[in-house]
Amino acid sequence: MARVSSLLSFSLTLLIFFHGYTAQQFPNECQLDQLNALEPSHVLKSEAGRIEVWDHHAPQLRCSGVSFARYVIESKGLYLPSFVNTAKLSFVAQGRGLMGKVIPGCAETFQDSSVFQPRQGRQFEGQGEEGQSQRFHDMHQKVEHIRSGDTIATTPGVAQWFYNDGHQPLVIVSVFDLASHQNQLDRNPRPFYLAGNNPQGQVWLHGREQQPQKNIFSGFGPEVIAQALKIDLQTAQQLQNQDDNRGNIVRVQGPFGVIRPPLRGQRPQEEEEERVGNGLEETICSARSVDNLDDPSRADVYKPQLGYISTLNSYDLPILRFIRLSALRGSIRQNAMVLPQWNANANSVLYVTDGEAQVQIVNDNGDRVFDGQVSQGQLIVVPQGFSVVKRATSDQFRWVEFKTNANAQINTLAGRTSVLRGLPLAVITNGFEISPEEAKRVKFNTLETTLTHSSGPASYGRPRVAAA
Amino acid sequence: MARVSSLLSFSLTLLIFFHGYTAQQFPNECQLDQLNALEPSHVLKSEAGRIEVWDHHAPQLRCSGVSFARYVIESKGLYLPSFVNTAKLSFVAQGRGLMGKVIPGCAETFQDSSVFQPRQGRQFEGQGEEGQSQRFHDMHQKVEHIRSGDTIATTPGVAQWFYNDGHQPLVIVSVFDLASHQNQLDRNPRPFYLAGNNPQGQVWLHGREQQPQKNIFSGFGPEVIAQALKIDLQTAQQLQNQDDNRGNIVRVQGPFGVIRPPLRGQRPQEEEEERVGNGLEETICSARSVDNLDDPSRADVYKPQLGYISTLNSYDLPILRFIRLSALRGSIRQNAMVLPQWNANANSVLYVTDGEAQVQIVNDNGDRVFDGQVSQGQLIVVPQGFSVVKRATSDQFRWVEFKTNANAQINTLAGRTSVLRGLPLAVITNGFEISPEEAKRVKFNTLETTLTHSSGPASYGRPRVAAA
Amino acid sequence: MARVSSLLSFSLTLLIFFHGYTAQQFPNECQLDQLNALEPSHVLKSEAGRIEVWDHHAPQLRCSGVSFARYVIESKGLYLPSFVNTAKLSFVAQGRGLMGKVIPGCAETFQDSSVFQPRQGRQFEGQGEEGQSQRFHDMHQKVEHIRSGDTIATTPGVAQWFYNDGHQPLVIVSVFDLASHQNQLDRNPRPFYLAGNNPQGQVWLHGREQQPQKNIFSGFGPEVIAQALKIDLQTAQQLQNQDDNRGNIVRVQGPFGVIRPPLRGQRPQEEEEERVGNGLEETICSARSVDNLDDPSRADVYKPQLGYISTLNSYDLPILRFIRLSALRGSIRQNAMVLPQWNANANSVLYVTDGEAQVQIVNDNGDRVFDGQVSQGQLIVVPQGFSVVKRATSDQFRWVEFKTNANAQINTLAGRTSVLRGLPLAVITNGFEISPEEAKRVKFNTLETTLTHSSGPASYGRPRVAAA
Repeated sequence: MARVSSLLSFSLTLLIFFHGYTAQQFPNECQLDQLNALEPSHVLKSEAGRIEVWDHHAPQLRCSGVSFARYVIESKGLYLPSFVNTAKLSFVAQGRGLMGKVIPGCAETFQDSSVFQPRQGRQFEGQGEEGQSQRFHDMHQKVEHIRSGDTIATTPGVAQWFYNDGHQPLVIVSVFDLASHQNQLDRNPRPFYLAGNNPQGQVWLHGREQQPQKNIFSGFGPEVIAQALKIDLQTAQQLQNQDDNRGNIVRVQGPFGVIRPPLRGQRPQEEEEERVGNGLEETICSARSVDNLDDPSRADVYKPQLGYISTLNSYDLPILRFIRLSALRGSIRQNAMVLPQWNANANSVLYVTDGEAQVQIVNDNGDRVFDGQVSQGQLIVVPQGFSVVKRATSDQFRWVEFKTNANAQINTLAGRTSVLRGLPLAVITNGFEISPEEAKRVKFNTLETTLTHSSGPASYGRPRVAAA
Repeated sequence: MARVSSLLSFSLTLLIFFHGYTAQQFPNECQLDQLNALEPSHVLKSEAGRIEVWDHHAPQLRCSGVSFARYVIESKGLYLPSFVNTAKLSFVAQGRGLMGKVIPGCAETFQDSSVFQPRQGRQFEGQGEEGQSQRFHDMHQKVEHIRSGDTIATTPGVAQWFYNDGHQPLVIVSVFDLASHQNQLDRNPRPFYLAGNNPQGQVWLHGREQQPQKNIFSGFGPEVIAQALKIDLQTAQQLQNQDDNRGNIVRVQGPFGVIRPPLRGQRPQEEEEERVGNGLEETICSARSVDNLDDPSRADVYKPQLGYISTLNSYDLPILRFIRLSALRGSIRQNAMVLPQWNANANSVLYVTDGEAQVQIVNDNGDRVFDGQVSQGQLIVVPQGFSVVKRATSDQFRWVEFKTNANAQINTLAGRTSVLRGLPLAVITNGFEISPEEAKRVKFNTLETTLTHSSGPASYGRPRVAAA
Repeated sequence: MARVSSLLSFSLTLLIFFHGYTAQQFPNECQLDQLNALEPSHVLKSEAGRIEVWDHHAPQLRCSGVSFARYVIESKGLYLPSFVNTAKLSFVAQGRGLMGKVIPGCAETFQDSSVFQPRQGRQFEGQGEEGQSQRFHDMHQKVEHIRSGDTIATTPGVAQWFYNDGHQPLVIVSVFDLASHQNQLDRNPRPFYLAGNNPQGQVWLHGREQQPQKNIFSGFGPEVIAQALKIDLQTAQQLQNQDDNRGNIVRVQGPFGVIRPPLRGQRPQEEEEERVGNGLEETICSARSVDNLDDPSRADVYKPQLGYISTLNSYDLPILRFIRLSALRGSIRQNAMVLPQWNANANSVLYVTDGEAQVQIVNDNGDRVFDGQVSQGQLIVVPQGFSVVKRATSDQFRWVEFKTNANAQINTLAGRTSVLRGLPLAVITNGFEISPEEAKRVKFNTLETTLTHSSGPASYGRPRVAAA
């Protein structure tokens, strides 16, 4: 009897094992029978804000090969410089602030003008000027104003910081492209901290007992830091932030004295290019990496009654060719519908910034794998080829989509540029067994390209038994 | 005793598990000690044809990262529009027909000429013209004639249909590049159906209980379809093809009335370019995606007594640079031999369209991993670096090779451009311990580059004990 | 009781299985809590040298997606032609010799001048010249002199041979990029032998019982070889080297009579380009693939008292754009320090050619994952984003770094082009909770860019309890 039980155990185990083996040998990460609107799974609290991390092991995120995070930086909060092992595309969902990146080898092009005055010539020796520190003249790399709607491209390994100089929280969402060849590590997001720390550890990583995450300096011997920076051992230890428990977003005490250009006006690009054009040859150093998607005057699709859609791809922002991501910003009114469409060459990660919408998503098997509401702060993935339809169910529905291709293409199922319009009538009549008259209506009735009116919610989203 | 058995069970299981673990952690997909000529593993029957699918989990297909299918479309059969998540390269092995692709955002450039006559100006309102439907004037995207020898490149997410307007079956074979970055899903081929269905489900997928595969429309609520297309609910339900069981290749009743150019003549490219040059700016819309490999006047290697070989790479057909595949067409006579060669930078998938040949393939270990006959309709993979020799054993041996590189390169082991010709004699004499006279013969005797005569089958393929 | 034990067994197994399952589903190859200085794990002995292979399953090599080997070729040793399935970057660590590559389709551009004299016109018929074989005039592809410091790029599938014409051993180290798309097989290095053999088999491959590795010819039937090369069966069998046990590095008997240009002088590139410019159009055939990194006059960073650093990327050697690898050569004196830095967009494989150094490496968690000595002949990997500091502890420390990006970028933590210099003071004061005066020192004290003096070893490398 015990033998039997034991044999049973053995067989069961074998069975399970081989099932697992098969599943692993032939990964089916995109065998998605159900999608969900995702919320963050981990919250890292800091002194002046928090970082909310989505679990990148969730099937739909694994299928699309990305991870996702939301940074909430309170007023006067400073997100300390860090870098990641992946290309990153960020979107400012709310608030305004300052952003700085440090690109290796680029010059410190932001300087106090008085720096050039002869009487101050000795000040960068940096040894004996205590007491007049408030009047010390700094120089550093480019600092940019950012505001709601800005989309920010960041290459791997480049350190970046944010400061909230507004009164409301600065909210930034970021997608990390784990599957791209630019990430040369494994498929995990790995932030590296130059300053600050993360007492909770990298909770999103599986299979490792989490240790508090410290900054890079704390990993070196203090003597090494002291020698490399030519400072005393005590300051070197200070850089290691060992007793710091403020996390990675700290509250700035007093004024935040960085050199910054005047706030940009209506036409940000031109100003920027002008500013950069002064005596700076290195294109990589002056490459534009920010563009605003919230300006309806730049919209790619615009219907006053319905809303607008703006896209940002490598033709708009050439650095996207390098990081192989692109973005789409949408804003539609109650009862407007984004016509059903699919992504031809990209996965799409949709994050809701305002309001809510009814969404249906259909997979390769023709099954409805999502049929529900997505609301502000939620995330949903639309994998390559999956068809999706969205309809605003609040006054305003606004979202941002990150796409894993520098020039993502969509195909629409309805409308003037849709696949049905491109098909001959004979294919439609034979394919759907409908009359030529019906086929004509199917093909030509909808004249819009992307956005249309939808009737009230009553008839929409009705439970559909067969699809369950 | 039971304890012992149970412990044994435990240990065995552990043993097996860890073996599996190791195998999985370090995938050895290309540890190929034996290759086989493969035949389709699944057949999907439709009203007017069938789709034959090779199991992409077969070791040699997994190693090369592709999947493969054959479409047999009967006379008057219409392969309904569908798209896939991968780049695809197809070859028309037999028959002739029409092909249409719908590229998103491109104009409907094929129009009935009468469309432009003023008295018909209202016809696309499409509401009250029942009864004169046969005279309705359509407009749609480009439709092309295809015929035996045509090689067709298709980008991911682009819907494509085929119609057999000939009398014999139209046979198309296609390779799907699963391993390319253009496939952003997992390593499974995933067709998405715009119309039609597949009652057997995606039988080639492991680890999912198969449901019948329906078209995309059937996944949405009928109300959504009705709203998006501005049609009534009944027609919307019709689009969902719920009660249709014709599969994805349907029989066209009556004439197949699509707008098509006159059948192309001797020099297809020029005509095509000319036609396209009229007022169409978008290069992606007019990019050529078809080329014929069966015209001996275009051959890259041609020997009247032996046969010919034609290659198609991104220099011939620029869209191949984008989909990162290329093709080779070969046709040789009885007793002609393709000199031994290896693929330097690609895997190669060889499909036999006519006749049969003796093939030997040698792996990285110097072992003969295939030594046998491949015949019409069979498939064999030659992975990167593996050497292969082919010799026709029927009157005519014709094949097509799909290569996983836009500019696949081969190296030959014999002949005027071979690796032996490039090596100094001193390397050959020392490497093989042969005399300079022998080395000279080894190096210079064969003057052909690719094709040569082989003597009769008697001396060839003799069993070779040591290699077993 | 037995039941209990058996159930326990079952549960334990399940537990272990699911742990494994999880680990495999979400590969964490770069969860590196500890790095080690690696030595070769396998030695393949040959008649005139040996090949030393590093285990590419070692976690740090798997994380970086490369494998590594060292070739030690004795005086008069000939490394017989072979090719691999990956892009390869090699560095001549010691000695000098000749190198030949056979690029498919390229002409035999190295010819005895007398070849062109009319009286010798018949010699390549190669049939009846026995007895005057020593005076036979050869033609073959380019042969190049190589010497210590040369860095050699090789594309996949291209056969390459080396000959040691010096008096000391010729030592070449090579990195193989397994993770690149150019390797179309699995993630294992797979050498293919044109001549020679490897009696020990491919011992670095897991999961296959090793058979002796033979050359490609021995996999074909001898009749096939005879037909293809138009030689007799006996010579064909000779090519199969069945009874040869010299391995892949053989000793040349007598003079090694290949056509070679005069030894290059001070300025190798110009000469080479000049030589190549004569009547050879095909750019792929004449593309430069070798550059010397040991010439201090070409150094990118040079400090007479400290040492120099030279980099080689695709701007210097365009073929690197294609193989997506680059290299760095460093040479520093006792007590010189390479300032702490990280790789922004590449993994780096560091091989020590001379002397030894103290190295500290810090991972994404801020943990010191390596703190020790690396000496001549050892290898250590610095994954993307990991920070590293090196300090010579012998008279001279010289190393070569292979980077998995055609244009690898580093960021420094200290020095005039460092990330700290690019940050505003306000970020530094708030990030590290230090005074503006301290921040100024942190930011401006070190004026060097890459190399600096370090004090004696006493204060360095002190055990650091908290990091363990």
